[in-house]
Amino acid sequence: MTDFELDPRLAQDTLEVGHIAGCRLLLMNDARYPWLILVPERPNLRELHDLSDDEFSAVTGAIKHLSAGLQALTEAPKMNVAALGNQVPMLHIHIIARRPDDPSWPGPVWGNGAAVAYTQDEQNVLVATLQEQLLAAD
Amino acid sequence: MTDFELDPRLAQDTLEVGHIAGCRLLLMNDARYPWLILVPERPNLRELHDLSDDEFSAVTGAIKHLSAGLQALTEAPKMNVAALGNQVPMLHIHIIARRPDDPSWPGPVWGNGAAVAYTQDEQNVLVATLQEQLLAAD
Repeated sequence: MTDFELDPRLAQDTLEVGHIAGCRLLLMNDARYPWLILVPERPNLRELHDLSDDEFSAVTGAIKHLSAGLQALTEAPKMNVAALGNQVPMLHIHIIARRPDDPSWPGPVWGNGAAVAYTQDEQNVLVATLQEQLLAAD
Repeated sequence: MTDFELDPRLAQDTLEVGHIAGCRLLLMNDARYPWLILVPERPNLRELHDLSDDEFSAVTGAIKHLSAGLQALTEAPKMNVAALGNQVPMLHIHIIARRPDDPSWPGPVWGNGAAVAYTQDEQNVLVATLQEQLLAAD
């Protein structure tokens, strides 16, 4: 993990939840959607397929775990999972709980309006809940 | 694979390339972007995490192979990989080669303008090339 430093834009837009499968787990500070971001903690990664086979297996396993866990926690009818990186080149994977009444449905969430920050109380409760529900077994 | 029938909207918007890892491989009929769609051939799947561990490993392995292969083939500077499904609920994974001069860059491709169909000649060449370059080893 030496030499890894989180992209400053990701750092600014998110709250840290913890670590899983060699990745940093972040919560997007946007109350419009339950939105996790998973960042493999190795420098100079841009594409999912840049991961070694072992890393890829660990990261995709974490994606499966987090997508199922966030859907169970939120009871959202649809999950969106995506690695895009057109704007922030550091490899990061979005795991987003979607609902027909969210402000971007049925379109994608990216580039649609401004984030609505969580209050400090919401941040504390959410991060603690995600740590307990999604990371406790790790 | 019994009972599996491709969603009619996916069938209408794509050309069939072949099969890999228990999935149907499709090419989006949109000359604006090199755009593959991978559809696990099992009915009633909606989420990536609905796949069994073995299926998930096979499907994500195919994603890695196809993302690397399409990037090598197109020399695109960025790949986008996503499972969304807000509009077409059948589980399908987008693998898209992106360039700074494509009509949606740096935004996502979904919902931005109308598809530009390939000519019949382009379709024939592309499907044959993708079969040879991405599916030959399978």
